[in-house]
Amino acid sequence: MTATGLLDAIAGVGRDPRRGGYSRHGFDRAELELREWFTEEARRRDLAVRCDRNGNLWAWWGEPGADAVVTGSHLDSVPGGGAFDGPLGVVSALAAVDVLRENGFTPVRPFAVVVFAEEEGGRFGVPCLGSRLLSGAIDPDAARGLLDPGGVTFAEAAAEAGLDPARLGRDDEALSAIGTFVELHVEQGRGLIDLGAPVGVADSILAHGRWRFRFAGEGNHAGATLLGDRRDPVVPAAETVLAARIAAADVPGARATVGRLVPNPGGTNVIASTVDLWLDARAGDDASTRQVVAHVRAMASAAAEREGCELVVTEESYGDTVHFDTGLRDRVVSALGGVPVLPTGAGHDAGILAAHVPTAMLFVRNPTGVSHAPEEFAEADDCETGVSALATVLKGLAG
Amino acid sequence: MTATGLLDAIAGVGRDPRRGGYSRHGFDRAELELREWFTEEARRRDLAVRCDRNGNLWAWWGEPGADAVVTGSHLDSVPGGGAFDGPLGVVSALAAVDVLRENGFTPVRPFAVVVFAEEEGGRFGVPCLGSRLLSGAIDPDAARGLLDPGGVTFAEAAAEAGLDPARLGRDDEALSAIGTFVELHVEQGRGLIDLGAPVGVADSILAHGRWRFRFAGEGNHAGATLLGDRRDPVVPAAETVLAARIAAADVPGARATVGRLVPNPGGTNVIASTVDLWLDARAGDDASTRQVVAHVRAMASAAAEREGCELVVTEESYGDTVHFDTGLRDRVVSALGGVPVLPTGAGHDAGILAAHVPTAMLFVRNPTGVSHAPEEFAEADDCETGVSALATVLKGLAG
Repeated sequence: MTATGLLDAIAGVGRDPRRGGYSRHGFDRAELELREWFTEEARRRDLAVRCDRNGNLWAWWGEPGADAVVTGSHLDSVPGGGAFDGPLGVVSALAAVDVLRENGFTPVRPFAVVVFAEEEGGRFGVPCLGSRLLSGAIDPDAARGLLDPGGVTFAEAAAEAGLDPARLGRDDEALSAIGTFVELHVEQGRGLIDLGAPVGVADSILAHGRWRFRFAGEGNHAGATLLGDRRDPVVPAAETVLAARIAAADVPGARATVGRLVPNPGGTNVIASTVDLWLDARAGDDASTRQVVAHVRAMASAAAEREGCELVVTEESYGDTVHFDTGLRDRVVSALGGVPVLPTGAGHDAGILAAHVPTAMLFVRNPTGVSHAPEEFAEADDCETGVSALATVLKGLAG
Repeated sequence: MTATGLLDAIAGVGRDPRRGGYSRHGFDRAELELREWFTEEARRRDLAVRCDRNGNLWAWWGEPGADAVVTGSHLDSVPGGGAFDGPLGVVSALAAVDVLRENGFTPVRPFAVVVFAEEEGGRFGVPCLGSRLLSGAIDPDAARGLLDPGGVTFAEAAAEAGLDPARLGRDDEALSAIGTFVELHVEQGRGLIDLGAPVGVADSILAHGRWRFRFAGEGNHAGATLLGDRRDPVVPAAETVLAARIAAADVPGARATVGRLVPNPGGTNVIASTVDLWLDARAGDDASTRQVVAHVRAMASAAAEREGCELVVTEESYGDTVHFDTGLRDRVVSALGGVPVLPTGAGHDAGILAAHVPTAMLFVRNPTGVSHAPEEFAEADDCETGVSALATVLKGLAG
């Protein structure tokens, strides 16, 4: 089966008619349906599927074991996301298994296809939650208490999905099984377009964190409250949106974004009582990222004070710059006949695992350059080039 | 039964654990439960209840007829609203009927207690929807097509509630039945606190409209998209929030508020593709209100252009300044022994009906000065003073 053929099979799952694109979030109905679909596809290939303690799915080709070659990605999306971010890496892994088998290959090292849970943090706020839990990069108590927008805890959602919330957390057995991890992903930028190449290899990932800014003012009537009597948290929140742009522009290569902003209660004729906004900030290194956030925070505090509002800032996730294993990177580039190497601003489970095991990433060209939106795309030919490249890399590692 | 006793009976209906306070919106479960409760309370008083073509409930004391004395308010709330805005006028009307009966009074003119539908526009966006439909102040086709945040049309919700959507619209029979309308309401400001009076009479309502600003940019990845490549609609939306404050400050007595702002898709790691924000603007007259909105619009357009975004502005509702009938007002003030007269910035069904029939409003002191929020309040003694004042006024009108 081709990668695009496999993607076609799930094209109807988790469509979001309101936002456009797909909304598939950790343990929601759409994501559970995709997990069932993956399990079925794996079984069809005689891969033995098990779910680990943190909700990540493993499909083993042959006996599970230590020092395995592991490949895969995730099936969840951002709200209103595209069809490729995540699923392309999963279907390409399955398609690569098919290619290897057709070529008569049998892995010498243990070999698994993995699907990581809640990579986008679209439901519980923390990206790469499955790989963070597995590798101990998040405190399991903190993870259990994460809330979705409806007030459901991650512990409750995990229990509902059949996991034991008490057993969430670092999984040394699973972690030590991974000898090498390779993730294929649609590119989230224009690097491969500009280079005219269908496939590239990752060099590094920007440092990246998410901070929640909660402004508290005084809810009141939009018509009856004089301007001078207002403590309207929407005002400093708006100043913070603009501050993010200013602060990021001050630091070369930095990005700062507010894509989620929720006034409470959110009525047209109501001065909000509180506003939550989330700052997504990234830069080339830890110090630059911290500098951007400190700058935004200082401007937000001053704006809150001018309006008589309180501000509480909470770091919801953070990960330092990732430099992928250079030995593995060079080996992958060489196996693929010298494909380009490029950095990315997007976070990935591969970035979490890179702190523990040699990890590599392949990118497939995205002709729109757009990601986290319905316009995200990859041509069928480029997808097949990606599968072929992944199969070559896996064969070299597992043979 | 006292007004506060009646309010206590519905204190558990429609609580909003997420926002605090109450969320009771037109034809939602909470509002339908309140309608049933009202119907039962009316029947208990031998008032004959009927629902008009537009979803407004009428409880008739004696035979329905023309030139009736009508009193009442609404049962819906803003999202996360208080317990008094709306329900206080309804329970005070019922309690006033009790007082009049205890005093052996029987109305000579036809007499009805009314509950107007969707006064806040908290679900379908247009305030005073029930009274606007009844009086022909909104085109029924436009009303049928109004959408709630879940994409349900007003026509669908009305049908679900047992109305015939084809019959929505101006109801001359109901309108001509109203000879005089009196609405009691909790004050939404500090006027009566400052005057040291438990009850006052309304003079005027500010001109008031709601405008939706839709900014369209390009959804993309928050990490992978360079600042210079962004068309992020959250940025001009934030500038518009600040523009609203600037524009309102330029016009004496004007207010402009953004309390509802929705980035789509609303992911932390996603540059939004669109943002909807709603501007609530009010001022002393039509020209001043239009001036505020034009100023905000000009600043919003410039901000959108700087970011490469499109902007579409839609007027969702508008009502000019209301000056209540001075003859009726003076008669009410005199019947109550010279209570204060004061203007308000808040809209009411009484303001819609004032264009057709002599209309008066009584305000009950709100010791917090806060409205459209859980802190909204009225002391039990002030509520009883309100009931007594309303009974006096109704007796004078209907006797």
